[in-house]
Formats: sequence, structure tokens, C-alpha cells
Amino acid sequence: MARFDFVSDNTAGAAPEAMAALVAANRGFVSSYGTDEISAKAADLIRGLVDADAEVRFVASGTAANAIALAALCRPFEAVLAHGHAHVSIDETGAPSFFGGGLALRPLTGAHGRIAPASLAEALAQPDHAHTQGAAALSLTNATEYGAVYATQEIAALAGAAKAGGLAVHLDGARLFNAAAAGFDLKAIPKMGVDVLVVGGTKAGMTPTEALVVFDRTLARRLDARLKQSGQLPSKGRFYAAPFIGMLEDGAVLRHAAHANAMAARLAAAMPFPLNHPVESNGVFVEMDEATRRRLWKAGWDSSRFLDGSVRFMCSWATTPEAVDELGEALRAL
Amino acid sequence: MARFDFVSDNTAGAAPEAMAALVAANRGFVSSYGTDEISAKAADLIRGLVDADAEVRFVASGTAANAIALAALCRPFEAVLAHGHAHVSIDETGAPSFFGGGLALRPLTGAHGRIAPASLAEALAQPDHAHTQGAAALSLTNATEYGAVYATQEIAALAGAAKAGGLAVHLDGARLFNAAAAGFDLKAIPKMGVDVLVVGGTKAGMTPTEALVVFDRTLARRLDARLKQSGQLPSKGRFYAAPFIGMLEDGAVLRHAAHANAMAARLAAAMPFPLNHPVESNGVFVEMDEATRRRLWKAGWDSSRFLDGSVRFMCSWATTPEAVDELGEALRAL
Amino acid sequence: MARFDFVSDNTAGAAPEAMAALVAANRGFVSSYGTDEISAKAADLIRGLVDADAEVRFVASGTAANAIALAALCRPFEAVLAHGHAHVSIDETGAPSFFGGGLALRPLTGAHGRIAPASLAEALAQPDHAHTQGAAALSLTNATEYGAVYATQEIAALAGAAKAGGLAVHLDGARLFNAAAAGFDLKAIPKMGVDVLVVGGTKAGMTPTEALVVFDRTLARRLDARLKQSGQLPSKGRFYAAPFIGMLEDGAVLRHAAHANAMAARLAAAMPFPLNHPVESNGVFVEMDEATRRRLWKAGWDSSRFLDGSVRFMCSWATTPEAVDELGEALRAL
Amino acid sequence: MARFDFVSDNTAGAAPEAMAALVAANRGFVSSYGTDEISAKAADLIRGLVDADAEVRFVASGTAANAIALAALCRPFEAVLAHGHAHVSIDETGAPSFFGGGLALRPLTGAHGRIAPASLAEALAQPDHAHTQGAAALSLTNATEYGAVYATQEIAALAGAAKAGGLAVHLDGARLFNAAAAGFDLKAIPKMGVDVLVVGGTKAGMTPTEALVVFDRTLARRLDARLKQSGQLPSKGRFYAAPFIGMLEDGAVLRHAAHANAMAARLAAAMPFPLNHPVESNGVFVEMDEATRRRLWKAGWDSSRFLDGSVRFMCSWATTPEAVDELGEALRAL
Repeated sequence: MARFDFVSDNTAGAAPEAMAALVAANRGFVSSYGTDEISAKAADLIRGLVDADAEVRFVASGTAANAIALAALCRPFEAVLAHGHAHVSIDETGAPSFFGGGLALRPLTGAHGRIAPASLAEALAQPDHAHTQGAAALSLTNATEYGAVYATQEIAALAGAAKAGGLAVHLDGARLFNAAAAGFDLKAIPKMGVDVLVVGGTKAGMTPTEALVVFDRTLARRLDARLKQSGQLPSKGRFYAAPFIGMLEDGAVLRHAAHANAMAARLAAAMPFPLNHPVESNGVFVEMDEATRRRLWKAGWDSSRFLDGSVRFMCSWATTPEAVDELGEALRAL
Repeated sequence: MARFDFVSDNTAGAAPEAMAALVAANRGFVSSYGTDEISAKAADLIRGLVDADAEVRFVASGTAANAIALAALCRPFEAVLAHGHAHVSIDETGAPSFFGGGLALRPLTGAHGRIAPASLAEALAQPDHAHTQGAAALSLTNATEYGAVYATQEIAALAGAAKAGGLAVHLDGARLFNAAAAGFDLKAIPKMGVDVLVVGGTKAGMTPTEALVVFDRTLARRLDARLKQSGQLPSKGRFYAAPFIGMLEDGAVLRHAAHANAMAARLAAAMPFPLNHPVESNGVFVEMDEATRRRLWKAGWDSSRFLDGSVRFMCSWATTPEAVDELGEALRAL
Repeated sequence: MARFDFVSDNTAGAAPEAMAALVAANRGFVSSYGTDEISAKAADLIRGLVDADAEVRFVASGTAANAIALAALCRPFEAVLAHGHAHVSIDETGAPSFFGGGLALRPLTGAHGRIAPASLAEALAQPDHAHTQGAAALSLTNATEYGAVYATQEIAALAGAAKAGGLAVHLDGARLFNAAAAGFDLKAIPKMGVDVLVVGGTKAGMTPTEALVVFDRTLARRLDARLKQSGQLPSKGRFYAAPFIGMLEDGAVLRHAAHANAMAARLAAAMPFPLNHPVESNGVFVEMDEATRRRLWKAGWDSSRFLDGSVRFMCSWATTPEAVDELGEALRAL
Repeated sequence: MARFDFVSDNTAGAAPEAMAALVAANRGFVSSYGTDEISAKAADLIRGLVDADAEVRFVASGTAANAIALAALCRPFEAVLAHGHAHVSIDETGAPSFFGGGLALRPLTGAHGRIAPASLAEALAQPDHAHTQGAAALSLTNATEYGAVYATQEIAALAGAAKAGGLAVHLDGARLFNAAAAGFDLKAIPKMGVDVLVVGGTKAGMTPTEALVVFDRTLARRLDARLKQSGQLPSKGRFYAAPFIGMLEDGAVLRHAAHANAMAARLAAAMPFPLNHPVESNGVFVEMDEATRRRLWKAGWDSSRFLDGSVRFMCSWATTPEAVDELGEALRAL
């Protein structure tokens, strides 16, 4: 049975390169709280990835990483602009508001989870008013919640507009490697004005770990204290750094991401249901009624219903062509 | 060199049983957010450990686990009573106040990190007053921050007094297995009135993981939402559950804890400096001036200076008798 | 000129009865923080108004009163259901989230600011899910933000549905007396299951003051500490209590509210622009383009543009028939 | 009887000048939320008082004013240094931590509520450490909680040391006019590096009102949104501004403060109990056992027991020489 294969890209385990690095890191005594050499090496690799001299920390959870980032960029009486269907907006139980002491998320719109420039422009044009929470940050996500991938220039334009309006910029990269495998230029990120980037390790095929990348050094003051207070300064930091080493050292992570994207394309090609979003990374979103979805579940496959009404199937580093074909058959048999 | 061997019990890696279970858990696709069978099995093992039908969740960080627990037990305008030198009081960057929206920690006193019953009684006798934060919870730690171990009956007496005063009770078990190896009865915990227990995995020799054990089921309502908002509902939950399986299934964790305790006893026996606290678990706290400590550092060994002025040496599952003897020699040579 | 006469019902000063009571209260030394006899007498009058034995406190601000109430009813990882155009939703700069540590407001719909029973039913039918903030409280407002007045039975039905779904109920009564003058039965409030009521003094014609009425005594534990921490336990409490005495003792507040309602009806009758909402209390909301509104402003009259696109004119205890007629003429002359 | 005359300086009502201004302000319709001309005039008077171009707002509560100021100066993972017996430290139910999302207060020491330069120096010398909340602000109080008055130069030295250490500076002026009447130079405040000042109106003899004075304009961005979210942007702002006009226009407030100070001196002179603190403003703190204090209470006079063990008697604008003499007699008769 393959009940959980396609329900998310976090139902897979860790890729061999990540596990090997984890096991390799489990040697001897090292200093704690991210001051060890494994953490230093992983941070260097992340800096190389984005070609910038940034502060890098490894934390346990994407929700925490995003929430900490937004709380650093936005005060309680201010707001974060984000796509209304972004993960930070709808799928993190209000973590940004919790970590940010009440900050608001203001929904922007746009097809396929991409923020439409006009929607951002409209939000930026709103006059500041003491009775509402004025915008202080823009949160972007690439790949988007619906599997679309922003072109490098699209992100640059949105980030540029935000910066011109005095806003800070956050990039949620839970699926950054899937976007990179689809052509998004990681080295362009710091030049675009992104202040804080979250590089997702978990969905990319690691054991739980996310990299928090702070480009704006003024934000980095007392960063470790901020993380500690947030429960995100792990004592045995090496175990959050090591998977990144294993996956970044020889480009494994991008190979795995390209594979996941290819599996999604393969599934899309075999899909008998209409696609609701272009398949640009590792997710396939289709039109399917609930009765049909339930029959699929009885046939042994779980899926997720999304906010836009789509049914989602996700591929990961671990998805096999055989599983895709098997699911394709099951879908056609419904 | 052995610079970090004794500086903390979190400088060691993970014990073989924990790593083996982690590697074993990395198979196939499983459901996310702690709904998988590995998490279910580990939770059963924890329930067996304390012989109670509790809600069990696995989270990434002890700081987060403690802070989430205290925030559940205490409102922002109330206070947690804790030893003034407890980890939650002095070493978590105010995480309880952050997670608890401003709740206060009121310091209690007592020798060796153990709360003196008289100190608790005095705090409980304080009249409630709208201009100060009244006590709503008692936080205990076993083993204590100074390596002392409460007897089962001592904890029961403190918890009982707190409950009689209308307070909830939290038990920080970052080193619970060290306490258990020293005689503390884990199965007595739920009967004592403890509402929330944190069972430390990390310092016990696991990769990062802590178990949050909620005995009071009314507190468990929307517990997963609470954890998700706190950035502590890991998507690949199996990796936080698995180490507990490896370490609990055949009692490995208690063997390792007993070993760590024995190594501390060995070090204490060899120690040329006066002990500031009885060595009842895995830490040795001694009187040592800063110049001497610096010489030790030059000789290749790190140590920690604590709030009471002591210099601390910690043993763990990974500490070898040879390292203890080597350190002992280095200490005598100062 | 009369620039600010109709822009809000908070541009008027305090009614003579309120000022007289304030001046009368300014005699001698009294105990502080609401423990004085003036506060006790005002609390008794409020209890008489709603015919219930409730805890009553007097605070400085409606925003604070609402936020404190919602924070008491809803935890950070939960949500308050409220009309999407309610004051707490759109006009308090996120105060409920700030006081409530990140709690969310989930928008309900319905004509004229009244929550449609179907919208509430739909929200209550949502399955609980750890990744979103589940509903814990319903916030109602009478009179509504658009001047509509719920019938007693309508409030009872909404509150009843909320309670049946396990939610607490908050009633924002910033314009409660306007609703009462329009037929809403104040004595029915506690019987309906309302847990916390805010009785607005300021817009009713008092110097700044609001009564926080807590029907659920379990919520009242450490209420003064909660208020003190929130900056809402005024030391010279008598000055927040006294206006209620002056306005409640001989029914002045209801006479003034009836007058304000009558002035709105008079303005509605003279209004050359289409009404967007029924005029049931003291506000008149009309269809008016921005160019016209600007001409009105040049003619000497301010107005407010609302979220639904309406232009609002408010009447208060201090609005004179002459001013209404003058504004009516100015509107017809546009 | 005179039970409450000396228990605090907030048991008195409002001085005639304050009430007259309040009544005078109750004329016609004015714009709301502090944008009216009465608020503008009062702000000008405050700017004149401190001889600086600052942002000035009028809020309802000193606790809120202090908490909002400290939350603006200090992030959740940082700490405010304040005297351990300061009002913000012990008498505001943790409001700074609540408004500041978990920020800590670190106690400094010094005689009579004055911070000893050595205590500040020691705190500033603490190395920054991710596991504790590092100092970000210094909070001063003049007159102090024990009635002592810092000399202008003393405040300048403390503020200068804090600024040199990278900290912001807050001055709690709940009894600022008592300090001024004792020689403290208000015009020196902005030159000393104070970032935010709270000018107490309530204890100075007004109806409830406090002025929040923000010298650092970068902190003033979205100040009204901050206040609104905090429940401290009063709609009928004129009633919080007016008392300052009545009391500042012809120096009444300083005359009243000088009177209060003189009454305290008179009481000190008649006092049969040992003074625990020098009587430099309007409070008298004495050594008195509880049995004696109870006899005084039976004789008709309330008093307050303070954290240092002293019994406190406060004088205000409304204290009469006759009442002082009567209390003196009662004290001598015990």
C-alpha cells in the first residue's frame, strides 16, 4: 500500500545523503548551541549557495523559522503582506502572530499562489492609519503553495516594490530547492533585497531542519538570544546542520529536487483530472469532487484538499516512477 | 584533546540505540505531524514509563517544551514558582515569559537546587494582590540544576503543597533519567499531582527530542494547535519519536543514565577541589577560582561557571572512565 | 461651522449629567483602584441595568475592554468569530490579537453588520484542525457597526448557537444604549449566555469610561490583576465610575440615546443620498462618491468613509435638530 | 475620619485647576483620538516644560504609559534594568513584560530607590549571552518609589552610562513634579539622553491622565497605531489633555507639588517613628511594627507597608496642615 506517498512531501523520510551526514556527525564531543564546526561548515555551504555573507542558523521547524523571521521584521501593531493562501497565512495556526505579539497578516491575491504585482501595489498604496495595522513586511514563497515557481525577475520586482515602500522582505523557501531546480536563481536572492530567507531542509529530503538566513546584519543583533527564547537554539546543533552538509556538498539536494519535480510532471501527464495550477515544481493540484477523492482513499491513496478547492498530490525525493504510474492507474480507474 | 567532554551533557552525540532507531525509522512514507505509528509507539512507551494514560507529544527543544508547559498552566498576569537557579529561571532567555505572554517567574530558594519546603510555603502564604503576579504554578526540576536528586517523597510533598494551594505543577525532566537512575520513581509522578512533565531525550543521549507529557486531559484540548503555533509540531515527527523507542525499549536509557551518574561519582572521587553540591546524578560542581579554571582551559578542558559560583563538570552516556581519569589527573596537576 | 458634529459620536463632549456626577465625585479622599464607594455604587447600577450579579469594572477604553474580554475567552492558538466589519475586526489595530497573544479573528458575514445565522453555522461546522486557529469565542456588537440593531431574539439565537458549539460569547456594547433605546432588552443579556459584556460610556455621552461586565464568575478570578497588567486598573477609579452614576441614576443615558437615534432618523428623512443600511440607531450610512464627499467637506462638514464604501454620519446626545437640518440643507445643495 | 488621606497620593481627587480645565474643555464638537486643539495645546505646554521638540500623547494610565515605553525600547529577548523596588519592577503586575511580549526586568540596587552607579556599572559590564536576556534599556524613576529625589546630575550620569553602553533610557515621572519642586531640572531631561519620559498627571492632582513624551523621533513612527493597539488612544482625547492645560498654564502643578512636599516635611518633623528614607518629596517612610500599624488603622488611618518593610504615608496637593497635625497626634498617641 502507498497511502501516504503523495499526501505531502513531508511523509517521506530522509535521503541517503542526509542520513549519512547525520550519522557521520555523530562522532565525539562538540560544543553546543550551534557553535560547533559542523554547524560552521553547513553555514558556509548555505552562504555559498546564496553567494552572500549572511548570518545562518539551523532550526527545527519551518513554522518557527518563518514566525521568528516575521517577528523580527514587523512590530505587533504592524502587518505582514502575504498571499492569502500562503503557508504563513493559513497553515501555521497563527504562529507569526504568536511569535510577533499580535502582528497581522494581510492577504494579497494572485493566480497559483504567486502575488500579483497589482495586488501588492494596491496594498502599498493604502494610507497609513492608526486604527489598522500598517504593512511593515512582505512575505514571499517560492515555490508557491500551489506549486508555481516565481521567475527570478518576478521575485525581484515584488521585493523591489516592497523595499521602495519601506517594507522588509521575507522569503519562505520551504520548497526553495524545488524552485531552484525549476530555474529560480538562488544567488540572486540577496541582491533582490530579501532580508530574511528560510531554506527548507525537511521537505527537501532531510531529517527535520531549516536554515534561517539573515542578510540584514542589523537584524542579527542578539539573534541567538532571540532563537533561544523561541525554543529554537538547539543544544545539539550539529544534528540540524549535518543534513545540509550531506545534501549541499555535491549538489544532491538539487538532484533530489529535480527528481521530485520530474515525478510531478510525470503524474501530471498521467492525470485524468483537470489541473488547477501549472505543474512547475513538485505538486499536482487537480479538480476532483469529494466522492471521487473518497473512492481514491478507499483504493489506498491519501490526498489533501486545499483552500482553493483543489486536491493535491505531492512528490518528493523518494517518489518512484512506479508509484507515480500506480497512482495514475488508480486515478484513471476511479 | 577532550575540550568539550565535560562542559555539558549536550556536547556528546547520540547513543547507538538512539541512532539505530533513527535509522530504522527512516523507512518508507508515514503520515506527518506525529500521527504516524512510530510516534504512537514511542508515546505508548512513555506512558508505560510513568504508568499513566497521558497525552504525549515529541518536540524539538527542552526550552520550548518547558515554556509551552508553563504557558499552559499560568496566565500572563500570574507567576510560576521555581527555584531561582532552575533552568527555566535563568537559562532559557525568558522563554516561559515569551511563550506565556508576560508571565513571571518567582524565585524560590533551597540548597543544591532543591526547593526548600519552607520557601514554597512562604510563597504560597503570600496574599493575592492585584498589583503583583500571583502564583499559578510550581515548576520542579529533577535532577536539579546542581545535580541533586529529589527523593520521590520530597517531590510528592512539594507538589502536594502546591496543589493544596490551587497551583498546577510542572516537572522539568531534562535529566529525568539521571534522577531515575539515582532512585527517583517515575511511576509515582502522575500520582503526585504533576500536570505536565517534560522528559528530556537530548541530554539522555538522543538526537534532539523531548517528550511533553500532559496528565491533565483538560489541558490537552487543542494541544496540537498549541504546538503547531509554537513551532513544535514537527512534520516528520517520527524522527523525534524514534530515539525514544531505541532508548526505552530495553531500558538502554536507564543504563546510560546510570553510567553517566557513575562517571560523575568517579570524577568526584578523584576531584582535588571542594565539592559545592552532593554528587547525586551526572554533574560535579566544585569550588575553583577563575585563574585555575583558565589554566585548566589551557590544559585542554572546558568547564562552565554557574550562578552559585561553582565550576561544573558534566558526565554523559558517552563519558569514558579513561576521560574521567585523564581529567582527574589534569585537575590534580593544576 | 460644524466640521466635526457628524463625523463620529465621540466628537461630542460629555452630557451634563455625566459632568455633574464627575464634579460631584471630586470630593475628599477615597480608596483607589476601584475599591471606593463611587465605583461600588456605579457597579450596582450596572448590575441593575442587566439584572444580574456580575463582576463590574470601569476601564478607560473600549478597545482595551474588548481586547481584555476576548483575551480572557480565547487562547493564542484559537480564534474569535466576529463580523468581518465589526470594530474589533477592523478598527482596533489588532488589539485583540495583541492582548490575546496572537489570537485570530475569523470574519463572519451578514447584512448591515449583523452576523447571519448561516454564516455562524458554517463557521461552527468547520472541523477542528491543528493547523488553523479553532473558534473559541463569538463576538457580537449591538448596535452594529452599520447602525443596525439586533432584536433580542436574534442575539439570543446567535449566542445560543455559539454556546451549543462550546464557544464563549462577548458582546461589544459601545453603542449598547442606542440599541436599548431601539428596543434591545438589556436584562435579557445574561440569560442569553453572554460571558462578557462591554457597556460603552464614552459614545453614550460620558467622559471616557467603559464598563466591563463579567457574568461568568470563573473568568473573574484575578480580574483586577488582569486589568492592572493591561494598564486598565485606574488608580483614581472614581472618575471612571462617576459618569455612569450620573447617566444611569434617572435614566438619562437612555433619553440621550433615544435622542441620538431620533436625530439619525431625522437626518435619514432629509437625506438626498441613498441609504445603504436601515437607520435603526444613531448612524446614517449613505451612497456618496468621493468628489461629492469632498465638496461637503469644503462646505464645512466632515464625514467618514467606511469599509463597505458607505459614507457615515453619526448623531449623538449633543446633536441638535438645527444641526441636522443644516447638514440636510448642505447635502441637498451638493 | 480621614482613613484614606495618607495611604497614597492617588486617594485625593483632582485639583481645582484641573477640574476647571476639564469642564472648560467640555464644549462643542472636536475631532477625536488626540487630533483636537486642546490636545495640541497641552502637548505644546509639555514640550515647553521640557524645552524639546518631542512627540507627546496623553494616555489614561501610568502603568500603560510605562509598559508601552519599555516595550518600545526593548525586545522580548532583552531586559530592562530598573531599581528592584521601582514601580515598574514590583507594582505593575508585570505590565512591561505583558506589553513587551516577555521582556525581563533586571533589578538594580541602591539606597532609597535611587540606583547606585556601581550597580548600574556592574549590570552593564555583564557579558552578552544568548541564554539570558541582555540589557537594552534603563528605567529611572524620579522622585523614587521611596520619596528620594535624584539630583539632575545624578540622573545625567546614570543615563549617560546607559547610553554609553548602548541602552535606551526611560524615565518614569509618576511624581515628576514632586521631583521638580525639589530641584530636579525638567529642561535637562532631553539633554541627558532620555528617550521616553512619562509625566504623571494623576498623582500630581489631575483626573486620570499621563503624558507620554517621546524624544527619539524614530521611536515615534506609528506611535498612534501602537497606542491604539494598546488601548491607549482615547477617542475623547481632550479629557486627558485638558487637566494638563489647567495645571501647567500658570504653574499650578508645581505649586501643588511643592505643597505636597511641604506637607511631607511637616509630617516628618512631627513623626515619632524613625524615618527609613530621607523626605525629599511627598512621601514619609518609617519603621513601624505591624501591631502598631493596626492600632493606627483602628484609630482611623490607613497606611501602606512597602517592600523594604517601611510603612508609608503620602501627601498630595489636597493634604492639609490640619490633617498632618491630626495624624501626627494620632501617631504620637499610639
